Amino acid sequence: MRLLEERIIKDGKVKAGNVLKVDSFLNHQMDIALFGEIGKEFHRLFAADHVTKILTIEASGIGIACITAQYFQVPVVFAKKNQTKNIAGEVYTSKVESFTHGRVYDIIVAKEFLRPEDRILIIDDFLANGSALLGLSQLVKDAGATLVGAGIAVEKGFQAGGKLVRDAGVRVESLAIIESMDEDGKIVFRHS
Amino acid sequence: MRLLEERIIKDGKVKAGNVLKVDSFLNHQMDIALFGEIGKEFHRLFAADHVTKILTIEASGIGIACITAQYFQVPVVFAKKNQTKNIAGEVYTSKVESFTHGRVYDIIVAKEFLRPEDRILIIDDFLANGSALLGLSQLVKDAGATLVGAGIAVEKGFQAGGKLVRDAGVRVESLAIIESMDEDGKIVFRHS
Repeated sequence: MRLLEERIIKDGKVKAGNVLKVDSFLNHQMDIALFGEIGKEFHRLFAADHVTKILTIEASGIGIACITAQYFQVPVVFAKKNQTKNIAGEVYTSKVESFTHGRVYDIIVAKEFLRPEDRILIIDDFLANGSALLGLSQLVKDAGATLVGAGIAVEKGFQAGGKLVRDAGVRVESLAIIESMDEDGKIVFRHS
Repeated sequence: MRLLEERIIKDGKVKAGNVLKVDSFLNHQMDIALFGEIGKEFHRLFAADHVTKILTIEASGIGIACITAQYFQVPVVFAKKNQTKNIAGEVYTSKVESFTHGRVYDIIVAKEFLRPEDRILIIDDFLANGSALLGLSQLVKDAGATLVGAGIAVEKGFQAGGKLVRDAGVRVESLAIIESMDEDGKIVFRHS
């Protein structure tokens, strides 16, 4: 998606440790007009898939998921992290390893919000090591629901996540895939 | 806002300890069509206030804030909780006491996203003890920006927060104010 690539070139900042900072428009401050274009593109890609619900993970996936959901006219469910009141039997749970924060945490979704008849589209802002996406996919599988695919804003193509998740049979549509980047600010995108 | 009150009556659940569960439509699963009506109402209430930015707090405020922002055509900034990499000098920070989780945590916003010339509208899903709202207000004050007010979906009118924040001079517009509720499911709303 050219609009998103251009924005990453313009406002993204490459930091030490393969960190791409896009917090001026994607995941701290959020450009809602850009999210609208992202949502339209996800809808174009998954329009034929009879999506009944969008699943994301707190916190930075929620904004894009909610704006995208307007085009599908479906509700959004967000998986919660580090829930203290983790009532056994009432929630689906999975483990996720954070690339940014370097730790493992539990994610949960209340069982009542993921049903076997649901056709789930996962939306998230980033795909790096794939752990969040695999964790979310596991929740969908545990619920017996159908995973139609995942819509990702920015994929770090030089990390293992994209291949890992696609090899697991999940359809992943990333609107910008970073082939390589360096701290001098050079960012190269992958185009299929 | 009648639509929201009716939805709380229909789908809200009163739990022990003055907890109102609205997680089927507001803060775990999110009814995006309802959020659209909430956003329109906030825009009607604050349309004349030249809002330049919406400020909210992760995680459950983000959805309503993003949908609302479309009507104002402004970006959203969300305050982050428990940030590990809290670089002194680059962020505004404040303390918030969680009613639901019973603990105190830091919230932060990068200084570059709150400017003295900004006219900030705070959006959140809940107002109970007022701690989150006061913490967010403090960030706005620290930035030297103008706080035009706060738009809240559900206010627990029987807790101290609403009075506390209004007495501090903040214009608070809550779309549903709960006067009283009990575990038999009886919910009474306040109407001015």
